[in-house]
Amino acid sequence: MSTYILRIDCPDEKGLVHKITGVLYHHELNVLRNDEFVDRTSGHFFMRTEFSGECQEEKVVNALRGILPDTVTISLTTVQPKKVVLLATKEHHCLSDLLIRNAYKDLNLDILAVVANHDTLRPLVEKFNIPFFLVSAEGLTRVEHEAAVLSVVEGYQPDYLVLAKYMRILSAEFQSRFPRRIINIHHSFLPAFVGANPYRQAFERGVKIIGATAHFVNEHLDEGPIITQDVIPVNHSKTWQELAAAGRDVEKIALAKALKLVFEDRVFVKDNKTVVFE
Amino acid sequence: MSTYILRIDCPDEKGLVHKITGVLYHHELNVLRNDEFVDRTSGHFFMRTEFSGECQEEKVVNALRGILPDTVTISLTTVQPKKVVLLATKEHHCLSDLLIRNAYKDLNLDILAVVANHDTLRPLVEKFNIPFFLVSAEGLTRVEHEAAVLSVVEGYQPDYLVLAKYMRILSAEFQSRFPRRIINIHHSFLPAFVGANPYRQAFERGVKIIGATAHFVNEHLDEGPIITQDVIPVNHSKTWQELAAAGRDVEKIALAKALKLVFEDRVFVKDNKTVVFE
Amino acid sequence: MSTYILRIDCPDEKGLVHKITGVLYHHELNVLRNDEFVDRTSGHFFMRTEFSGECQEEKVVNALRGILPDTVTISLTTVQPKKVVLLATKEHHCLSDLLIRNAYKDLNLDILAVVANHDTLRPLVEKFNIPFFLVSAEGLTRVEHEAAVLSVVEGYQPDYLVLAKYMRILSAEFQSRFPRRIINIHHSFLPAFVGANPYRQAFERGVKIIGATAHFVNEHLDEGPIITQDVIPVNHSKTWQELAAAGRDVEKIALAKALKLVFEDRVFVKDNKTVVFE
Amino acid sequence: MSTYILRIDCPDEKGLVHKITGVLYHHELNVLRNDEFVDRTSGHFFMRTEFSGECQEEKVVNALRGILPDTVTISLTTVQPKKVVLLATKEHHCLSDLLIRNAYKDLNLDILAVVANHDTLRPLVEKFNIPFFLVSAEGLTRVEHEAAVLSVVEGYQPDYLVLAKYMRILSAEFQSRFPRRIINIHHSFLPAFVGANPYRQAFERGVKIIGATAHFVNEHLDEGPIITQDVIPVNHSKTWQELAAAGRDVEKIALAKALKLVFEDRVFVKDNKTVVFE
Repeated sequence: MSTYILRIDCPDEKGLVHKITGVLYHHELNVLRNDEFVDRTSGHFFMRTEFSGECQEEKVVNALRGILPDTVTISLTTVQPKKVVLLATKEHHCLSDLLIRNAYKDLNLDILAVVANHDTLRPLVEKFNIPFFLVSAEGLTRVEHEAAVLSVVEGYQPDYLVLAKYMRILSAEFQSRFPRRIINIHHSFLPAFVGANPYRQAFERGVKIIGATAHFVNEHLDEGPIITQDVIPVNHSKTWQELAAAGRDVEKIALAKALKLVFEDRVFVKDNKTVVFE
Repeated sequence: MSTYILRIDCPDEKGLVHKITGVLYHHELNVLRNDEFVDRTSGHFFMRTEFSGECQEEKVVNALRGILPDTVTISLTTVQPKKVVLLATKEHHCLSDLLIRNAYKDLNLDILAVVANHDTLRPLVEKFNIPFFLVSAEGLTRVEHEAAVLSVVEGYQPDYLVLAKYMRILSAEFQSRFPRRIINIHHSFLPAFVGANPYRQAFERGVKIIGATAHFVNEHLDEGPIITQDVIPVNHSKTWQELAAAGRDVEKIALAKALKLVFEDRVFVKDNKTVVFE
Repeated sequence: MSTYILRIDCPDEKGLVHKITGVLYHHELNVLRNDEFVDRTSGHFFMRTEFSGECQEEKVVNALRGILPDTVTISLTTVQPKKVVLLATKEHHCLSDLLIRNAYKDLNLDILAVVANHDTLRPLVEKFNIPFFLVSAEGLTRVEHEAAVLSVVEGYQPDYLVLAKYMRILSAEFQSRFPRRIINIHHSFLPAFVGANPYRQAFERGVKIIGATAHFVNEHLDEGPIITQDVIPVNHSKTWQELAAAGRDVEKIALAKALKLVFEDRVFVKDNKTVVFE
Repeated sequence: MSTYILRIDCPDEKGLVHKITGVLYHHELNVLRNDEFVDRTSGHFFMRTEFSGECQEEKVVNALRGILPDTVTISLTTVQPKKVVLLATKEHHCLSDLLIRNAYKDLNLDILAVVANHDTLRPLVEKFNIPFFLVSAEGLTRVEHEAAVLSVVEGYQPDYLVLAKYMRILSAEFQSRFPRRIINIHHSFLPAFVGANPYRQAFERGVKIIGATAHFVNEHLDEGPIITQDVIPVNHSKTWQELAAAGRDVEKIALAKALKLVFEDRVFVKDNKTVVFE
């Protein structure tokens, strides 16, 4: 008997939970965990159900479609590791953490390949017997470089792309191939600092907390729907290089937390925000 | 149209959510928020539903009883401030925070009275026009003192007793008058320290984190079901008195968080643990 | 025998600690705690020393001036509560916390008066027998209103002004009367939100952490040197009003922490950052 | 010009800072950072100074000995990676984090070898070209097993032993070979749980926070001087296995923080507590 995850989101109306759980009940499925949320501002309904039993998937989905609004989004899957391609540049901290977690299966994750625009991280990746592709941007236009990256990535048909400190901006065209399926991590500060070397700016401002935000990538750079955020306290005695080192630790933790949530199908995206059933 | 909170807990079985939401749907009630949890270890089901509509409370509860296991616990209430009596001794930090929150209605709370075994806090309490009762323990046995406290408390028929740094141990007999309705706050450490002056012991051990636990009182002193816990970092430079001062700040915050949760009917107790729908 | 606090900051040069502690040693003063920091980026030296003994203050300061760079800033004081005037508007959460702490002397603080541009908080303030002054801004230009506030404030000759949710912007002229002596608290987010109702923006963006920053006021609104920052986790289920309520709790805590540090003379300001000897 | 770290601890007396900095000043050494602390309870003085310059180490130490109490402990070293042997069993989470940090030199650490009582982690360790020694305990008495471990360890003359989830208790005799040079990590809870499977106990108690403590090993198992502690929030929805997984993440972070501090010579031990100059 498999475990299934059912995800539904649609405009809210009376009786949704009753109707949905009715379908599961009549198919004699056994609900293990159920989370719903109605965003009253947008009037939108979100539901995630884990159940077990003998499930004829197509029949259940059809039965649900029959009783739910036309605009509903339904997914019904068994629990399986998500197929992921990582994009990286030179920094190892997020990548190495994910390679270790992949090796020991402590995220619901199957890393298919790493694509990087520098060769720096090849020895690390190859230690873990993961294919490493160098796609240098040198001498290429952005369009050409993205096409080259895409040709490697698409060969793997990943569920998700994870930007493990990939230091290049992805075009809207590239993103449109993986809507809500590209996840990025970047440093965050209170207040925010715009421009070059934000850690130096944070140092000069004497910030007392630095953080990291993991988010889905959208057309607005670093401003897609937030999945997780994390912070650590710092003080005046840290140089900006030490702030950056502390920032790397918090980045790797925030990214791992976000991927755990996304890869367990706990995250919904609606407009520019996420609903996360932890 | 009022807002109602329905709380149900019972042994788990197939179809519970479907059946319960069916009752609400057929009474044309509008579910605003729904939380369920099944503790798979104990096989127990917990559900909290906020709904609005024209509700004939008795009819709805009867309909629910008709379809749920005999051992079910059901409560259905409108959202109303909880009536509370506070017990205190000499320390003001939790009491003053609650008096302010009561005055500005930022907890779902109506403080009816404060009972203390010392007179120290009378001026503070009376500033806020709350009745203050001194029930000194001097010259009394514990049985006599508790009887005197009880006679004051029971006059108010409170929903909850809150021990806002009440430094006396309540007997099992006293507790049995308010099962799962007495809430306490106490300091917590990693590791735990047993015996007199735990802050001094924490100082001598050089702990780096101190905390506080808000919990329901049960027969095992300071070991009832945990509602909230909170911590703050400390370091070697703090004297034990400074550790204690830091501890007071974290106690008042943890207690306020716990009361917010309990007084919004978000906390279930089963055996020695809580289920908290935040 | 009193306890003294000596604060020195000046451009760094070799031997400063040796020279300074030499003066204390030769006056037979007993160092209880010593903190120094050299900001290597700016080449600036900061030192805070607590000592006890029979101290002829003028002689000690003169001896220090004789051996330190001309541009040195020296202060030598006994430990005394700071005289403070609070400015407020309508929100009580920071003000009430400070009134309680003042009443129980758990900050090194003596609140002389509260000045507000609305009458809302008068009953609260008067409970604690602190003078409350309404200086309404209605019908006044900013210059006229600030002059009226100033005439009340200056009558008290406070060491510090604390803006306990004072919702008006202070002009550069007003600020110049209290350089580095005005402390403000405001909400903070990752990322930052500019414009009206930042909590609503934070809600729409689905932020997972909200925070507060206590800082000295300077000519750049909300961008003066940061003293403390604090955060709390939130999630998608909070309305923006609930985010704002959570924000108020973190504001009151961050402000109290900042005032503890400043009023114990632990905070230095240099350029746009602080050095904080916790 | 090298950077040096001078560490001094001795009974407190007047003028220590002045005398010590005098020696540095007269040798024309340039103090970069200075931290002192006097534990007033024990009357003990701790000082850590970073300085640069042309340092004749023996001369400086002799000059310091000449002016300091007989019982002083002085160490003067250049900044060099600490030579470390890791002891492990089967769990990878702390070990892999340290192997990565070692490979990228982001702790002041040089891992010489890993010794384990199971062969599970060999492939991981050998990926990083670190010698791996299996010293099985099967069929050996504890004395025999420890002797076998010791013979491997001592061949490397490490500065520190780090127990990266080494699941065996070290005898007092073994410990005495590495006084204050063995560092351990273990889970921590509020409240503490004694006995088998503490995560299961924490689950049954419904704890809301779990943590980890990194500490020096002493004769009292898991009760040596604490270096760092860290916590994460959890809730009722986690199984005990999920609590344990969350615990592993906090263990690896707390251990890395502790090692950073110890390996930068920022940690003093006195009696059963540490003084940590962060």
